[in-house]
Amino acid sequence: MVYIQRRETFSASHRLFNSAWTDEQNEAVFGKCSNRHGHGHNFQLIVTVKGTVSSETGFVMNLVDLKDIMMREVIDQVDHRNLNEDVPFLQGVLPSTENLALAFWARLSPAIEARGSALHCVRIVETENNFVEYYGE
Amino acid sequence: MVYIQRRETFSASHRLFNSAWTDEQNEAVFGKCSNRHGHGHNFQLIVTVKGTVSSETGFVMNLVDLKDIMMREVIDQVDHRNLNEDVPFLQGVLPSTENLALAFWARLSPAIEARGSALHCVRIVETENNFVEYYGE
Amino acid sequence: MVYIQRRETFSASHRLFNSAWTDEQNEAVFGKCSNRHGHGHNFQLIVTVKGTVSSETGFVMNLVDLKDIMMREVIDQVDHRNLNEDVPFLQGVLPSTENLALAFWARLSPAIEARGSALHCVRIVETENNFVEYYGE
Amino acid sequence: MVYIQRRETFSASHRLFNSAWTDEQNEAVFGKCSNRHGHGHNFQLIVTVKGTVSSETGFVMNLVDLKDIMMREVIDQVDHRNLNEDVPFLQGVLPSTENLALAFWARLSPAIEARGSALHCVRIVETENNFVEYYGE
Amino acid sequence: MVYIQRRETFSASHRLFNSAWTDEQNEAVFGKCSNRHGHGHNFQLIVTVKGTVSSETGFVMNLVDLKDIMMREVIDQVDHRNLNEDVPFLQGVLPSTENLALAFWARLSPAIEARGSALHCVRIVETENNFVEYYGE
Amino acid sequence: MVYIQRRETFSASHRLFNSAWTDEQNEAVFGKCSNRHGHGHNFQLIVTVKGTVSSETGFVMNLVDLKDIMMREVIDQVDHRNLNEDVPFLQGVLPSTENLALAFWARLSPAIEARGSALHCVRIVETENNFVEYYGE
Repeated sequence: MVYIQRRETFSASHRLFNSAWTDEQNEAVFGKCSNRHGHGHNFQLIVTVKGTVSSETGFVMNLVDLKDIMMREVIDQVDHRNLNEDVPFLQGVLPSTENLALAFWARLSPAIEARGSALHCVRIVETENNFVEYYGE
Repeated sequence: MVYIQRRETFSASHRLFNSAWTDEQNEAVFGKCSNRHGHGHNFQLIVTVKGTVSSETGFVMNLVDLKDIMMREVIDQVDHRNLNEDVPFLQGVLPSTENLALAFWARLSPAIEARGSALHCVRIVETENNFVEYYGE
Repeated sequence: MVYIQRRETFSASHRLFNSAWTDEQNEAVFGKCSNRHGHGHNFQLIVTVKGTVSSETGFVMNLVDLKDIMMREVIDQVDHRNLNEDVPFLQGVLPSTENLALAFWARLSPAIEARGSALHCVRIVETENNFVEYYGE
Repeated sequence: MVYIQRRETFSASHRLFNSAWTDEQNEAVFGKCSNRHGHGHNFQLIVTVKGTVSSETGFVMNLVDLKDIMMREVIDQVDHRNLNEDVPFLQGVLPSTENLALAFWARLSPAIEARGSALHCVRIVETENNFVEYYGE
Repeated sequence: MVYIQRRETFSASHRLFNSAWTDEQNEAVFGKCSNRHGHGHNFQLIVTVKGTVSSETGFVMNLVDLKDIMMREVIDQVDHRNLNEDVPFLQGVLPSTENLALAFWARLSPAIEARGSALHCVRIVETENNFVEYYGE
Repeated sequence: MVYIQRRETFSASHRLFNSAWTDEQNEAVFGKCSNRHGHGHNFQLIVTVKGTVSSETGFVMNLVDLKDIMMREVIDQVDHRNLNEDVPFLQGVLPSTENLALAFWARLSPAIEARGSALHCVRIVETENNFVEYYGE
């Protein structure tokens, strides 16, 4: 079992805001992350796929295919977007990095399985100090 | 003459949009950077100050003072903000990285001169691929 | 189960030295790391916390709280300090990066559990080439 | 159980090419990676060793010894080499990053075990976007 | 006058070899960089363009245009290529990083001037330790 | 005229302290940087040499020679040392990063000129946020 990883980047804006709460509650929990007009990040998405190495190609999975899936399922949907407003698959989701990881897994896993491989980890780098990982369980 | 540099970071959203143009013109020039609800970045601001080295301190300028100026004049104003909406000193400015560099220079230079030092360069890192520098002339 | 990570940095000096040994033994095992007056590093501390995602906040744990714990329990104790001399919780500990990881875990884990979360990993980056990880067992 | 990691770098060229295939098949699967005269990378090799911490040294394993093993078993063999042509232990191996990880494990693991430690992971960074990990099973 | 920078990457192989010299002379001067089958790097190309900021766009030059020029004039020619064998505009050039900078300048400068801007600097990162800059004079 | 750069690293400890001052004055100016037992950093030294490109080698200066000079004149003197105590050429120098740049220039410039090249810049990276550059005048 070998693990391959592919990194892609996207630049997006978001606002941490729970619409069931008052502005004061949002400010108390989310601080400056709940500022009304949002802020943004250069996010990094690192996807890990696990599998056996093909004797014909030396690959667990062709990185061209993995890149295509990442672009189609995630990057093209979120890059240069507002994650609260513009992304159909994030409607109704509070766009914390944790929730992004869960939502990206839900889109990436079936697409990678359809290619005969298995998603192992979704890692999101939000800033140089903050990261999230999800392993599907 | 020695040059000292200090890096600080901020996360902000912006939209490249010229209000004198139609949506089609904005889309043609700015592409995805003009998407209606904006996007964002982890910006890095690197300020270079030049001067002679004090024989008493070994410093061109105390980095604590330089950091305080950067925080007060720029970072506290723009961090976790929308650069089109939230920043008084950017009102009416198209928030391209070039214009940010010019606007930050205008605020930083007098504050640094008031401490007896000279601003040499404002560098802004927008993404891992895009950077801007301004030397004041 | 989602994993969140927070990175903080500190600059410290240390000396690898076993006081039960002769200088020659120390030199043979630790080489230049045992030089008498010590040396130093820009250390990075990356803490991983695991937990479920709150439906109200989208968080495993508020990163503000995690940062506060990291600052209070570790960074404020070790930053700009000599790890052999200045840190009460490291008295009598040979300050190898491995032992730092163990000592930091002992302080961070109860503080994080007191917030209802679980520490998963302490990672220390000593140089761009040397790293240590501890998972508590 | 503590995990220590050591990073070393090497610069090498390679070509992804299956000699049992036609040029067209190679081009279809490997694309530009199968260009006739090869291309190259600044590879990073990150080795993780696991073990208990010695009370005498504070070490899982002396990093000087780990570095020596990495240099002798891998880096000196592959640095500034063509991985298809110049490396005896890669003869007949399609030099994908996955296969490099497997081949490096086979050389590193017995050498590290001979020192009384255990290899946990071989990680190879091929570009800033592509990575492979192997855990020996 | 504001300076904008754009970074692109390419992976290529090369061999430092002066065909007017004996193998011994090449070995003496170039060492392992002259190994017969070449080696390779993940090169970074950072291009700096200087100009005034347009009041309509906030741009010195549209980065989309700068990227297009960099891709067409350099990256598409050298990425995943052997710099000694495969690149028409490098025929007869000893592909040291210095010579790459000169050759890239010769291709980039007229293309950027044709867009009404001025090339200021070509910077090439060969490894994490080696860099070259050329300012056109 | 082409500029080549070489990066080397060293890990050292230091204390910012003016012996002509009281402890209170030192604390007021240098803060935690004046803590009695010192602290440390992973410093990076980046040296820029300028010159014309040899038609025989494609080099401004052989990087092997530049590395040798950097190791002999600076790195071997300061790596894993206390900059206040252990370095003969820093005796009596307050080891701020500015003063390190001046002292390193004084050692590197004649050694590089003795090889027929010219030192252009000494850059020191103290932390990921603090940098100093000196151009010799």
